[in-house]
Amino acid sequence: MQVPVVEQIFSANDQLAAANRARLDAARVFAVNVMASPGAGKTSLITRTVEMLNGDFRIGAVDGDIATTIDADRIAALGVPVVQINTGGACHLDAPMLQSALPQLPLEEIDLLIVENVGNLVCPASFKLGAHRSVLIASVPEGDDKPYKYPVMYRGVDAVVLNKMDVMTAFEFDVDYFRHGVEVLNPGLAFFSLSCKTGEGLNGWLVWLRDEIKEFRQQF
Amino acid sequence: MQVPVVEQIFSANDQLAAANRARLDAARVFAVNVMASPGAGKTSLITRTVEMLNGDFRIGAVDGDIATTIDADRIAALGVPVVQINTGGACHLDAPMLQSALPQLPLEEIDLLIVENVGNLVCPASFKLGAHRSVLIASVPEGDDKPYKYPVMYRGVDAVVLNKMDVMTAFEFDVDYFRHGVEVLNPGLAFFSLSCKTGEGLNGWLVWLRDEIKEFRQQF
Repeated sequence: MQVPVVEQIFSANDQLAAANRARLDAARVFAVNVMASPGAGKTSLITRTVEMLNGDFRIGAVDGDIATTIDADRIAALGVPVVQINTGGACHLDAPMLQSALPQLPLEEIDLLIVENVGNLVCPASFKLGAHRSVLIASVPEGDDKPYKYPVMYRGVDAVVLNKMDVMTAFEFDVDYFRHGVEVLNPGLAFFSLSCKTGEGLNGWLVWLRDEIKEFRQQF
Repeated sequence: MQVPVVEQIFSANDQLAAANRARLDAARVFAVNVMASPGAGKTSLITRTVEMLNGDFRIGAVDGDIATTIDADRIAALGVPVVQINTGGACHLDAPMLQSALPQLPLEEIDLLIVENVGNLVCPASFKLGAHRSVLIASVPEGDDKPYKYPVMYRGVDAVVLNKMDVMTAFEFDVDYFRHGVEVLNPGLAFFSLSCKTGEGLNGWLVWLRDEIKEFRQQF
């Protein structure tokens, strides 16, 4: 009885995600869905990325949160257009939420749209938004076993960023064990280890993102 | 259209949670629901607690995970009975899951049942299990703004444990700002700052837990 209902919900979401993608494509906006546990560094990576790429690309952001505008305010402080989605308690963004946010952005003046999902390592994995790429931020303090324990999230993304490398010595974190877990679930995945705090390792992530945007544009 | 359905689901869950509570009470088992973000230290606090209290109380555990038995194995290694609930992708435990786990435990030989929820700072808050107390573990690396950004979780718990105090100097974490956020949502909440790694601060948590168990027993 319940399975068909769930399938209908996902199907409706997927249809709206496809509509979002078409709208982004029409405006030549490359969109990235950024997901992570609470406190892994989503907003930090986004603000770092805006600071480093804002001269080369026109950037906009959509910020999903259960409550407060703390993250959206941090991004808006950098002078880029931001739309806040307050999910009102919901544990993830979905395609209808992004659909309602897009008209509030000047899409024709944006090259790269960064969507910050709700801090959650489970639910966001099940809801496509229509973004061109999805990125998962892990962080050293969370522990090296997370790919094993949250496989759905790790399986569905295009890149993994391991953040907070600057505190590696304070934790028992086996990078090889972590990467093995990622590789089993998602072979050949783009992987970057970095520190948003010190800036160490950010360049690899930025090169990848530039290349993805470049490739996106070549199709038109 | 949708709201009545959601209410029915919660109501059914609440009824089963009440049944779980009655069953635990009948067996004189005090149950604690432990919730947190992924990697905040749920399993570490539980193993520490088992190590320190196992001589005084007979302890059992229920371990909720999306995948793997990594956490359950860590707890079972201490020689206490553990039932693993593999949620099969679900983002939280609910009362039916606990109901199905209880018959697999020797309840008559358990004084304290520790239930480890799925690592998630959103969804577990909405599903009562029937436990007598709920505890939220926060951790320093997650950042001091979490009470503001995840208010539902902080509002619904009986105690907050701030873990990973040993790495405080490596992060910008304002304990006063954090505590203020907690206090606004949940005035007078029991609060413990500690490090499962070093053992610093554990005693306050253990004293509280002992007192809660003692108070629970006095009603019979």
